[in-house]
Amino acid sequence: MIARLAIMGVGLIGGSLALALKAAGACAEIVGTGRRIETLRRAQMLGVIDRYELDLASAVNHADMVVLATPLSAMEACLAEMAGALAEHTVFTDVGSTKLSVVAALRRARPAPLAHCVPGHPIAGAEQSGVAAARADLFQDRRVVLTPLPESAPAATARVRAMWQAAGAEVVMLDAAQHDAVLAATSHLPHALAYAYVASLAPRAAALLGYTGSGFRDFTRIAAGDAVLWRDISLANRTALRAALIKFREVLDALDAALAAQDGTALQDLYLEAQALRAQFINHQGASHE
Amino acid sequence: MIARLAIMGVGLIGGSLALALKAAGACAEIVGTGRRIETLRRAQMLGVIDRYELDLASAVNHADMVVLATPLSAMEACLAEMAGALAEHTVFTDVGSTKLSVVAALRRARPAPLAHCVPGHPIAGAEQSGVAAARADLFQDRRVVLTPLPESAPAATARVRAMWQAAGAEVVMLDAAQHDAVLAATSHLPHALAYAYVASLAPRAAALLGYTGSGFRDFTRIAAGDAVLWRDISLANRTALRAALIKFREVLDALDAALAAQDGTALQDLYLEAQALRAQFINHQGASHE
Repeated sequence: MIARLAIMGVGLIGGSLALALKAAGACAEIVGTGRRIETLRRAQMLGVIDRYELDLASAVNHADMVVLATPLSAMEACLAEMAGALAEHTVFTDVGSTKLSVVAALRRARPAPLAHCVPGHPIAGAEQSGVAAARADLFQDRRVVLTPLPESAPAATARVRAMWQAAGAEVVMLDAAQHDAVLAATSHLPHALAYAYVASLAPRAAALLGYTGSGFRDFTRIAAGDAVLWRDISLANRTALRAALIKFREVLDALDAALAAQDGTALQDLYLEAQALRAQFINHQGASHE
Repeated sequence: MIARLAIMGVGLIGGSLALALKAAGACAEIVGTGRRIETLRRAQMLGVIDRYELDLASAVNHADMVVLATPLSAMEACLAEMAGALAEHTVFTDVGSTKLSVVAALRRARPAPLAHCVPGHPIAGAEQSGVAAARADLFQDRRVVLTPLPESAPAATARVRAMWQAAGAEVVMLDAAQHDAVLAATSHLPHALAYAYVASLAPRAAALLGYTGSGFRDFTRIAAGDAVLWRDISLANRTALRAALIKFREVLDALDAALAAQDGTALQDLYLEAQALRAQFINHQGASHE
């Protein structure tokens, strides 16, 4: 049971966590904070948070758990503002999509003793963003990755883990660098490819309009995502993303070579391998994801 | 009104065309043919075709309209078998996903006088394939591209157009080379990219399982498609596909350069352009496609 939870950034992720913990009876009081008072008012009106504070330091003061759920680009400034405001016993975590960058920011800003800091990343999302799209079941059966620091106290990690489990998630532990490499491959690279693909159509877009089908729609859906958010993720995780890109280019080169050589066997092998691997990935997502 | 329609290859596309024409009362008799008697029996049992003939020449004999709806790789052999079997007045069309390759095969095999040949391609599909997935509304508000030959008689083109309109489709005319360039960009390239992306994860797949979300699922859905079919489409349209690939690589190079230079503005511009263009494409698909 968390007596007081402070959430910085009450959007889709922060708001859904609040709703899930309320629904599970795992949290007595939820205080929201953020830059836009309209969002906080709306979150309160929707019953997502109990109250809000515009002043970040007041919001986190005396909280048992502080969750940083702003966009990546705002995290550094929030961490700096928070420094010195956390109580002795407060545990700090975040929901950033990249972890090495957050760990570096944490080490610079030290919002709390590092023993009380446990970075995290829920692998969940939805088409819509913002607090209005928040739902109590967003994390149900989804994975949350925690990347504890060498300094993180086991008790602090256990409290963050218990919070996410109360929200319905499966919690796994990874090293921050490992997390970033995994997410670069499974999420950040596909986003970059989808954006690059659509942008590559720009010079002859007029001639192509009306000739797309459901395959195009699904393949490019992630290019409808928030461009600024994805710019920040791409930059924050550029090293791992570029490494994943190198591997992708190698396969694309092989595919192009097979086309040039009219090598049907090589092409078929590549497509069949991808098809089988895709099925394996989707099976691992579990029924609730498909 | 088509008195007798012969469909070679009664799968998703051929079967859906049959159902749509029946539903519209636009066809008196539909004869199916193909290599597998189980498929033809099933099609008859499902009421998709009125009867079937295992002998291709008998099936097309005295048909007013012949639709070749086999996979691309089977078309050349079917065309050769058909030569000489078509009646004087029979109009021939196909549903192949690439058109220059079909035009070349037509010119080699001459199943009918070229004046009576009107190649075509319905831009429609579904997750499932096979006759059991056929539905009367598959072409409703979808585009069908016809690529008449210089030799095609306007009356023959008009009859093929009328057939697809009766099935609910919007019919547009393109030059075969134009069609192949358009489809390479809007369909064949995304398929190749999706296959290449998933294949690029193979070396470390074990470490990545369980870390994919809904973005991955949608982005890779087209890599679940029939690998042999897509091998054939990729090979048949390799020239246009490789040209589209070159443009994609240019943008990917720019994206990678922006990551290397930590150029947030360039990255954001690229992502925003893609996001806006994607919205334009989806708007053009119409409400029924989203």
